Amino acid sequence: MGFWIADTLKTPLSTAKWHGASSFIIMAQIEKYDVIVIGAGPVGLLTSVCLSRWGYKVKNIDNRPVPTATGRADGIQPRTLEMLRNMGLKRKIMAADPARVYEVAFWDPAPGGKIIRTGTYPSCPSFIDARYPFTALLHQGLIERVMIEDLEKTGTTLERPATITRFETNNADPAYPVEVDLKNLDSNVITTYRTKYLFSGEGARSFVREQLQVQIRHKDPISYVWGVMDGVLRTNFPDIKMKCTIHSDHGSIMVIPRENNMVRLYIQIASSTDKDFNPRKTATVQEVQAAAQRILQPYTCEWDRVAWYSVYPIGQGLADRYTLDNRVFMGGDVCHTHSPKAGQGMNTAFHDAVNFAWKIHHVESGFADRSILETYETERRAVAETLLNFDNKYAALFSKTQQAQHGDSTAEQQAQANQDFINLFKENCEFTSGFGVAYAPNILNYSLSQSLPNLPSELHSLIISDDNARLRPGRVMPNSNVTRVVDANKVHLENEIPFNGSFRLFVYAGSNTSPKPNQHPLLTTLSNNLLKPGSFYSHFMHHNHRQLDTHHDSNNPHSPFFSVALTLCAKRPEIKIEELPELFQAYRDRVYADDAFNEPVLNATFGSHAKVGLVQNDSGEQADAAVVVVRPDGHLAIAVRLTEDEGTTKVLQAYFDQFTKPGEWDGKSGSSRTSTYYNERGQNRGLHGGTVFAKASL
Amino acid sequence: MGFWIADTLKTPLSTAKWHGASSFIIMAQIEKYDVIVIGAGPVGLLTSVCLSRWGYKVKNIDNRPVPTATGRADGIQPRTLEMLRNMGLKRKIMAADPARVYEVAFWDPAPGGKIIRTGTYPSCPSFIDARYPFTALLHQGLIERVMIEDLEKTGTTLERPATITRFETNNADPAYPVEVDLKNLDSNVITTYRTKYLFSGEGARSFVREQLQVQIRHKDPISYVWGVMDGVLRTNFPDIKMKCTIHSDHGSIMVIPRENNMVRLYIQIASSTDKDFNPRKTATVQEVQAAAQRILQPYTCEWDRVAWYSVYPIGQGLADRYTLDNRVFMGGDVCHTHSPKAGQGMNTAFHDAVNFAWKIHHVESGFADRSILETYETERRAVAETLLNFDNKYAALFSKTQQAQHGDSTAEQQAQANQDFINLFKENCEFTSGFGVAYAPNILNYSLSQSLPNLPSELHSLIISDDNARLRPGRVMPNSNVTRVVDANKVHLENEIPFNGSFRLFVYAGSNTSPKPNQHPLLTTLSNNLLKPGSFYSHFMHHNHRQLDTHHDSNNPHSPFFSVALTLCAKRPEIKIEELPELFQAYRDRVYADDAFNEPVLNATFGSHAKVGLVQNDSGEQADAAVVVVRPDGHLAIAVRLTEDEGTTKVLQAYFDQFTKPGEWDGKSGSSRTSTYYNERGQNRGLHGGTVFAKASL
Repeated sequence: MGFWIADTLKTPLSTAKWHGASSFIIMAQIEKYDVIVIGAGPVGLLTSVCLSRWGYKVKNIDNRPVPTATGRADGIQPRTLEMLRNMGLKRKIMAADPARVYEVAFWDPAPGGKIIRTGTYPSCPSFIDARYPFTALLHQGLIERVMIEDLEKTGTTLERPATITRFETNNADPAYPVEVDLKNLDSNVITTYRTKYLFSGEGARSFVREQLQVQIRHKDPISYVWGVMDGVLRTNFPDIKMKCTIHSDHGSIMVIPRENNMVRLYIQIASSTDKDFNPRKTATVQEVQAAAQRILQPYTCEWDRVAWYSVYPIGQGLADRYTLDNRVFMGGDVCHTHSPKAGQGMNTAFHDAVNFAWKIHHVESGFADRSILETYETERRAVAETLLNFDNKYAALFSKTQQAQHGDSTAEQQAQANQDFINLFKENCEFTSGFGVAYAPNILNYSLSQSLPNLPSELHSLIISDDNARLRPGRVMPNSNVTRVVDANKVHLENEIPFNGSFRLFVYAGSNTSPKPNQHPLLTTLSNNLLKPGSFYSHFMHHNHRQLDTHHDSNNPHSPFFSVALTLCAKRPEIKIEELPELFQAYRDRVYADDAFNEPVLNATFGSHAKVGLVQNDSGEQADAAVVVVRPDGHLAIAVRLTEDEGTTKVLQAYFDQFTKPGEWDGKSGSSRTSTYYNERGQNRGLHGGTVFAKASL
Repeated sequence: MGFWIADTLKTPLSTAKWHGASSFIIMAQIEKYDVIVIGAGPVGLLTSVCLSRWGYKVKNIDNRPVPTATGRADGIQPRTLEMLRNMGLKRKIMAADPARVYEVAFWDPAPGGKIIRTGTYPSCPSFIDARYPFTALLHQGLIERVMIEDLEKTGTTLERPATITRFETNNADPAYPVEVDLKNLDSNVITTYRTKYLFSGEGARSFVREQLQVQIRHKDPISYVWGVMDGVLRTNFPDIKMKCTIHSDHGSIMVIPRENNMVRLYIQIASSTDKDFNPRKTATVQEVQAAAQRILQPYTCEWDRVAWYSVYPIGQGLADRYTLDNRVFMGGDVCHTHSPKAGQGMNTAFHDAVNFAWKIHHVESGFADRSILETYETERRAVAETLLNFDNKYAALFSKTQQAQHGDSTAEQQAQANQDFINLFKENCEFTSGFGVAYAPNILNYSLSQSLPNLPSELHSLIISDDNARLRPGRVMPNSNVTRVVDANKVHLENEIPFNGSFRLFVYAGSNTSPKPNQHPLLTTLSNNLLKPGSFYSHFMHHNHRQLDTHHDSNNPHSPFFSVALTLCAKRPEIKIEELPELFQAYRDRVYADDAFNEPVLNATFGSHAKVGLVQNDSGEQADAAVVVVRPDGHLAIAVRLTEDEGTTKVLQAYFDQFTKPGEWDGKSGSSRTSTYYNERGQNRGLHGGTVFAKASL
């Protein structure tokens, strides 16, 4: 295998590189892909972006001829912003000048048919400790455009308008088991392709899901009809630039500020709990504007323009399965639909895409066993379920609050409904910001309850994840500021390793009293054991296969699957990279001094250690040494104390042995297309000499 | 006047707007401009950007056919970064991923012909309190491209290659007194133009300066020959990503990190203090590389590629005059040349451009008297003089240090030379970061020594600038964080008013114990007095001339010449914009709560007040009320205590009466082209309904 078919080549034959063969054979006239992605909304595009950057051959289609022109999904939550920054996409999105929601205002009925602000609450309160404690709001098309530009850099193109008409996993070609028919909607020509994986990001109406006969379960029989309108509104309503939930005697509305002086209004037009519910009930722009004017009185309302308007029924549904055979996968709205009120749709879709992409990458590159693909559904479906449970309560309370104001309920009942709504909002801030996501224990996320196979029980005591609330596997790595030794830059440690598909080993050296801090035995031991032949780390090293030029490769000097960052309890000038143990010298750009200013642990001597709980108390001057393993998507995997013997490496070995492929790594047979790893600054770390990415059988 | 000539119109006649006339007359066949700018390097381009944004008709030419491809000026200092952010240009520049220099390392000779790091020092130490305490390094072409893109948005284009062949201020057309011949270097056609102003940003070799017979005075007879090389270097020298000055037994070198893994080396090839000085001495790439290898030993040196290389003599020169007639002006390298070692050239050029542009704008729009143009030369020439004095000492010490290592000097003399060099560097950090610039007292910068004309002496006591070290006129406004009331965003107060050509009135409300904080008498008095007919503020209001739609105009609801920002000592939810006095309601998007976290005044109750010295001590809970007047370029003009009577407004009136034009403002006769004010987020604040900019006689 490993040969491309002539007609699939993007580049002329003369410039293509062939491995292990001096000639090639036309095997078939059918075009083959690593992944075919249906749908160029958020989930489809981000899936394509990730896999294209890592060198996979991707085909992405969409049945719309052009990207979203206006409206639709618009809220990017704090955790998603961090992830986009880690992928080097945030700056371009922020350049569109999205509105930023820091606080939510709650408005309730006041005497005389008026409304009054009863309180405000941060949208991402300070206890969450987010780098970007706000929601960024801009229309979906602007976000799609950033991703399409990124795709173009990698050479992957979108075919649009095109649709999927047939697919089956028939194993006719075992390397490309899925057969897919795509129809170009301009030419009406149907073409058959073969692919290793098919990913559906089609949205709520999914051909793939229907064909697979995967059921959507509705959490609740209640459904709603919503109107949504984007436009430029002139009003003296003081909170028009804030996110507001407004309950009045004349109805309820949600206000969301937008880019370019716009505002989005969500208005509930009907609920199946209404006496005369009609799921086809609709409302014109004028009716929604009139309703808004009634609700906002005594404030004025005058529309400069309306940019987008839509009425749609909302049902809360969750797909039973995200895949049946680990070849055809689904994500985003295909799998979960809910109300737009908490601004979660696009965010959940993005995280579906990232979760899917890195696991496919690890399997296809020969690093991990196919069994890790099972965790895509279990992890992402559980998040969707939590979201639907929240949305279910939130939507019901929104309606209940609305009903309480019209009818038989007492003032106390009404006040209680309002208060319940606000309480629910506050309780769920961590989840809606994205930082509450905690993947359950599995082979990727260590838990005491699932001890590591083949690891002596006494070594389990080195694992500190269970005792340390800041290092819970399945949750996001805490952020911290450090000083990069090589250039004295103040940097965000959690973003120093970009979204490059590698497991991240954050080594915290701890405070030690060794006379030679740069050569502390804990670090020397770790270095020696990781580099020892046969370790999980050295097993996947480039040098097993070929001499690579890694001089300028900051993140993957040894292996495409591991990136190491070392943080030392010392002042920057005291740290001498040339004296560090061998492993860390290779990561010279990833050595840090824990001497920077860190909120909220202002008094900590070693703030970065403190933020991951490696100190006894926040002002502690003693910090513990550990290696914190973080998955490619930024979620914690396991954290292990550093020892002066082989203990630490044995625990890590047992962790990785669970899912990495035994036997010789087939790095040699992979494509040597240079992969393009982008960091937040948009810099392509792969261009200078370095990052040559090996993949098994492209 | 006020008519454009048919052949000068950029838009078809049918879409052009005509004011005060129902027909038009062909007056001449000669094309007329508000400003003709010669040279599209940093100073020329930024001049064009500023004036084009404000709606002026600008022609910019350059004798090079394309922008700088590589190399040349590369250092953007902290204060310049703040200014670029205020202009909405910083994000695009940072997107090119410049290297960031936070610290400078000093290397000196060690035994055995080796070198050793003798110390490091911050490039912008924390006492300076900069938002961006680093130097950003990237090649001049990337910076030029950002400005050219900005020019294109405004419709101004560059003509290149083209050169100036003749000019004279002959007043043949009194409205366009300067006649200019420009020669297109492709077609060799010479065309005559008329312009109100000619600005030369030609660089060190200036036709305009020669024609004007303006002399360059050399500070010092000593001159130098420098080699400079940009490239990708493989080395195990640990500080290759830091700015370093290296003195070794084999010579001296300066190391500057660059974007894209590059490094710049400056090497002094000859000095006129050498015994065998030859100003035409040169060196090849190979010779410079060999010298670098000798100096850096025992570290390794291997070049992947060289991106740019040049050898040039450096003289320190300062032009006697920047203008002779206030019609033909010069700036940037035309007026001052010096060594590149402190990274000041482009920064000084940028500030020349900005200083020139806003003053031309204020004169041409009918706001200010022509006398303010005199301050361009006095302010900018004094800065250049300070720079040359510093550079003179710095270059001499660099050479002296070098000589000390070769020759007759003792070890003590050598150590002393090294130490003097480091001390000079440290002493000048404030100046080189750009925050040390302090324009001297003049009609724009108040000083006790030059009391305001026509102001009763007792009212001078309301002026607090003299007593307050943080509000010294002529210096840059201190930065601070506040919460914007309208949308609860955490923002940088000093950047809230973009570089829009307006004077900025920062009103600090102080801590008061009024039962109605939103209607405190101090604010009501100020509002009433500013809006009173005849005040300097109301004199230049739009409403004197026409009804303008200013609903969405955050920065200039009343006048193109003033922007107001109000900061209150209160928590955000306590502030009710609708209860504020009339003036501030118009600035609803520019009302702030002083409740945010501010470094370094962590303990201050009111951090923004504390940062401008309006508290008794940093933890003081009592804050004073004042209005701080800031020039359009961010430099402080005057600060006045708020009073419950007309005192404050009388002082402000006396300040503005010094240079604003008496008599009726001719706002009516101006062009009504919508101006484009960009803030850092790249948002065009002028697009939505609002900002219609009035100018006298375009």
